[in-house]
Formats: sequence, C-alpha cells, structure tokens
Amino acid sequence: MQNFNFHNPTRILFGQGHLADLGREIPAGARILITYGGGSVVRTGTLDEVKAALKDFTVFEFAGIEPNPAYETLMQAVELARRERIDFLLAVGGGSVIDGTKFIAAAIPFAGDPWSILAEHAAIDSAVHFGTVLTLPATGSEMNSFAVITRRAGNDKLAFASPLVFPRFSVLDPTRTYTLPPRQVANGVVDAFVHIAEQYLTYPADAKVQDRFAEGLLLTLIEEGPKALQTPDNYAVRANLMWTATLALNGLIGAGVPQDWATHMLGHELTALHGLDHAQTLAVVLPAMLQVQRTEKRAKLLQYAERVWGLRDGDEDARIDAAIQHTRQFFESMQVLTRLSDYGIGADAIPALVAQLERHGMVALGEHQNIDVARSRQVFALAA
Amino acid sequence: MQNFNFHNPTRILFGQGHLADLGREIPAGARILITYGGGSVVRTGTLDEVKAALKDFTVFEFAGIEPNPAYETLMQAVELARRERIDFLLAVGGGSVIDGTKFIAAAIPFAGDPWSILAEHAAIDSAVHFGTVLTLPATGSEMNSFAVITRRAGNDKLAFASPLVFPRFSVLDPTRTYTLPPRQVANGVVDAFVHIAEQYLTYPADAKVQDRFAEGLLLTLIEEGPKALQTPDNYAVRANLMWTATLALNGLIGAGVPQDWATHMLGHELTALHGLDHAQTLAVVLPAMLQVQRTEKRAKLLQYAERVWGLRDGDEDARIDAAIQHTRQFFESMQVLTRLSDYGIGADAIPALVAQLERHGMVALGEHQNIDVARSRQVFALAA
Repeated sequence: MQNFNFHNPTRILFGQGHLADLGREIPAGARILITYGGGSVVRTGTLDEVKAALKDFTVFEFAGIEPNPAYETLMQAVELARRERIDFLLAVGGGSVIDGTKFIAAAIPFAGDPWSILAEHAAIDSAVHFGTVLTLPATGSEMNSFAVITRRAGNDKLAFASPLVFPRFSVLDPTRTYTLPPRQVANGVVDAFVHIAEQYLTYPADAKVQDRFAEGLLLTLIEEGPKALQTPDNYAVRANLMWTATLALNGLIGAGVPQDWATHMLGHELTALHGLDHAQTLAVVLPAMLQVQRTEKRAKLLQYAERVWGLRDGDEDARIDAAIQHTRQFFESMQVLTRLSDYGIGADAIPALVAQLERHGMVALGEHQNIDVARSRQVFALAA
Repeated sequence: MQNFNFHNPTRILFGQGHLADLGREIPAGARILITYGGGSVVRTGTLDEVKAALKDFTVFEFAGIEPNPAYETLMQAVELARRERIDFLLAVGGGSVIDGTKFIAAAIPFAGDPWSILAEHAAIDSAVHFGTVLTLPATGSEMNSFAVITRRAGNDKLAFASPLVFPRFSVLDPTRTYTLPPRQVANGVVDAFVHIAEQYLTYPADAKVQDRFAEGLLLTLIEEGPKALQTPDNYAVRANLMWTATLALNGLIGAGVPQDWATHMLGHELTALHGLDHAQTLAVVLPAMLQVQRTEKRAKLLQYAERVWGLRDGDEDARIDAAIQHTRQFFESMQVLTRLSDYGIGADAIPALVAQLERHGMVALGEHQNIDVARSRQVFALAA
C-alpha cells in the first residue's frame, strides 16, 4: 500500500426529510447565494423547499450554471457575490453546479485573475464556505475537493483542487433523483463506474481493502443501474446509486493506490471539441483504453474479470477480452453508446483531439505515465 | 437504507515516515501532553521519535494508561493537564490509550464531576484538541468519536461519544506494529472482526454498499490476520490490517444500517468481572450470540455464509451452522479461544454476569432490542 493522507471533512446528510433542516447547517446571519442550473430544481419544487428552509437568512440566487460549467458564466456569479457581500454559497443541483460553485467559492476572495486558479494552478488561501443539495448522483463532487471548469473561449476544460473547497455539508436525498431524465441517470452511473475504474484498474499495490471497496461499488452499479431506468421511483435503488456515486470519488478508494485518469483526460477533449456529455466520452474511451493498456493493467484486469464479472475459467487473455466486452455492454445497457461513430465522429476528428491533448500538456498519462500522444491516438482509433 | 448523518473529520496520515512531520499537525506554541501506556512505546523508541518531532513545543508526559483505561488513572492526567495549562493532547498507543485520552480531553474543561460524562451521559460542550500515533490496530478509536472507560470502584465499563472527541489527526504507520506481542495482534484482528459483525450481521436494510464494504473488510481480516502472526514484519499484511481495523469502526460501514452491539455489552461484563481481554470476550460471545439470534439474523447469516465463507450449497440451516463454526475456527486460528471454560469460567459465573447487565440497564439489546436478561443468560450458557 502506498503512503497516503486522507481527510474528508464534508458532513453527509443522507435520506429523506433533511432539506427542512438546512438552516441548522449554515452560520446564523449568513448572506447566502443559492447557485443552480437550468431550471429543473425550479420545476421539481426543490428550490422552493430550499428557500423555505432558509427563510431566516438573506438569500440571493444565481441560475444558469450549465453542464460543463463555463468560466464565463461563473465569473458573473463571482461579481454578484462580491457585490452583495455573500458569505455562504449553497449549490443545488448536480456535479456541474457543485463544481461551478467550488470555483465561485475560490474566486470570490482571490486577489489575482481567477483564471489562473485553473490555467496556472495558482494557490488559493481562502474560499467562501458552501454546502450542497445534490439532485444528480454522478460526479462525487458533493464530497470531494475537485472541480472541472470549461472556458468556452479556447475550448479548455481544466481541473483544480484544494482542501478549501470541500463542501461543509451535502444533503443527499434519493427521492430528489426520481424525476431525472433517463439520460442523466445513465450518465451518472457511467460516470461513477469510470471514476472507480480510474482508481482500481491500474496495477496491484497490496491494497486489499481499497480493491474490495472498489469492486463492491462496481457490483452495486451493475446491479442497481439498470433498475433505476426501469423503476425510477424505487427508493432503495436510488439510495444505493446515490451513496455509491459519492463513495466512488470521495478519496476513500483512491487512498494508497496508483491512479490512472487517462480516460478522463481523453474524454475532456471529446467534450471540448464535440460537445459530448462527460459520461458519453468516458463510455467511448474506457473500453478502448483498457484494450490499449491491457499489458500494463493485466493483473488488475484479471482480478476485475473474476471478482466483478465472475470470469474465472479459461484462457487469461480471453477473460480480459470478455471483461472489457462486459464493460462495454454494461454501458450500452444503460443506453450510453461506446463508439465515436455512434456520435457521428469519424477518424478524421482524431488529429485535432490529439492536438488538444498536446496543447494541454497531456502527453504522459496513466498510472505509468506511458500514454503519450501516439498511444492516445491509438485509443481514439480503437474507439472509432 | 436508513437515513444517516456521516461526518468524520479526522485526518489520517498513513504509511512510513509521517512521524517526523508530526509538528506540522499541531498548532504552533501548543503545550502538549503526550499520553501513553505501559512502556512499550518507550522500549520501541517510538516515544523518543515523537518527542524529537515535537522539539519546538512545550511537552509533558503522562504514562500508565492501562488496558481498559481506568477513570481513576485518567483523572490524574486531567489534574496534570489543568495544572500545566495543556492545550493539546497526543495519544501514543492503542485503543485504550486513545479512548483514555478522549476522556481526558473532554474532562479537562468540564465544569461538573467528570464521572457524569460516563455515568449520566452528561453533555460536553468543549474538549481539548488531540491527535494520535497508533501502535496497535484494533479498536478504530483513532478515527471515531467513541471511548469506553472503566471505573475500578464498581466494576463499571461505560462508553461515551461526542463529535468533539474525533482526533484531529492520526498517524498510522504499519511498521510500528511489527513488534507487538502475538496476543495483541490477534486480539486486534478479533476486535475489528466483531466491530464489523455488529454492524453487518443484523437484518437486510437495502444497503448494498455498506454490506459489500463490511464483507470486504471481513475477507481482508481472514486472509491477512494469520499472516501477521506468521510473518510479523510483512509491511503489506500490517498495512492492510491497520487500515481495515480503522475502517471497521469509523462510522462508514455503520451509516444507514441497523446495528447490534449486544456482543460488546455482554463482553464488557466479562472483562469487568473476570478480567478477560476485550477481544477474548468478543470471541467467546459472538458465536453463541449468532446461534441464539439465528432466526432474527437469518437472511444476513446466509449472505455472510455465502459471500465471506463461500458457502452456497445445501441446506440453509446447515450453511448458517457452518458459517458460525468457521467464525469460531477463525478466532481459534488466531489463538483467541472461544469458550468460557477456556478461561476457567464455569456456568456458576453466569448469574453475576447477568446481574451486571441488569444493573447497567442492558436489558433490551441487539438490533431488535429483543435480547433481555433471559436471552443474555442463554448466550452465556451456550458459550460455556
């Protein structure tokens, strides 16, 4: 097991009925900015419930944080927050709203150009405190300290991380996810699945607990994901998916093990240049990535084949092929397609994708840093 | 899944070499009281390393915190700490030292009689901050907010809990456990095993992740426990056991599921009246408890039989019997005996044990609160 430092101070309020208690989690007298996305929290009534729970506070609203939250949009919220002397943020939505809110929280007190937080990994020494009300289980942003932000000018999709942007609390109410469109449910399951894969499908590191936790999360997604599409208001299914997605990326299964994240890096460029949903990009890249990296990942792929897909017998290479095939079929069973051609993207698009990776310095990816541009090209080609 | 509130702010510094950085985790200028036990941390040099790392602080020492830490002992540390205006505690040792330090931390600023924190669950509104250097993986105290304290006068072994007594940080260095006596290693494995069982072997609650995490931890103990006795300086084995014991009782696998804890309550009286090691009491009580509660726990016992012991075929009752038998054999393979008679305790001791339970109000134990004194008597009788 590798050395690690694990610290996750986010308080999770899981289950039904917590929304009414929201006020208790926020310092008395706070001037709150509620941040949200495209209006689904308005339609479902969640925003009204949140505001009712915060009736003793001074509350402002900022709507319109889009999927792949845009720097340009978020800076409008930063201006509003500075103007109104906001001292607490409350993100109501999914990973994009929460990621965006993390950036807003860091940018409000930042003295220089906030873009440098993303582009130059400029250190931040404070951030406005914030909580979240999660409506879309997928990214784990509700219990971690990472965010991914897009700058439209330049097609840049860049990440930042800081212990200062852990949410103070996150309300996880599975009933809030009943009304999600099937595409968002499916995307969430695929996103969580690939988060786990990025921390698990590397090489053995004598980390038995982390491996078994990762396998437990994968098995839960495989069992419960399709049920969420079939019976959207099954509480147990939604609860298991919601908690799984959070635990998939809260630092726990990644503590003490090598990590990959190459699939995410290639996927980001697909979103930036072609507008695919984040999860669609992962479903396209992961099966091809596992094929290209099958030698490096051999031992863990065999473990994955056995413990997650029950493939114990026969030729080892055939088992690895079958495990990758099962992975692809699982994504497709969730209605998330796994080929570039499914999204109308031809092989002619690959040079521009690779050029983007190069421009962003993504030239030594993966747990062995062996995924250079040539290998990335090979992955895209295999995903065609 | 049941509603839950999960919050665990303890920072874990896991691996080799963290001890030298201890000073960074403690506020500058702190007046530190180092608490420890019977001298093994002196013999192994760990205490010297800790003091070297804290050379820029004002440091006091309090030695002599015993297994099943005694209120009488701990109050001496409280007096010392008040006299010397201590504002940070550092526990160096295992669960007893850490539990004791939690009580010291709570008692120092407590205005009334500190015994009421244990005997009357008196609320505490502050506690001195503290960290830990763990040398014995077992209780999980290094990453939770519980403590169990014994008052010699009265044979009382009582628990308290408060979010104020989460350690600020815990250093988990597996190499510190190489020199542990085999009995302490074995006890630690059994203790962690039963912590997991108390949160897992209840009734199904649609909590797939918690179940799989619990099963993953049990499997790790079963695989690695015996190896720790055979090859004491195997880093990977020690690391897996250390992290497993922490995760067994840090709130994670118990979030959103029913919990039992009857085995612990019966075990506490065995320690109070007969001086057995905590883990010995658990090894004696658990197999008998599972037999007596086999109807209530039927579904989870079958799941345990299948997923932990690979028992999938044949008669269900036979599978449950076999799973309980495997549990007993595992404890015995760790050299922890599982019958009262193994410790020289006869059936004539049972009335006094049951009377202690009654005196402590332990008359409706277990996840169904159906374990009254008659059933506790039955458990002790079956454990004879």
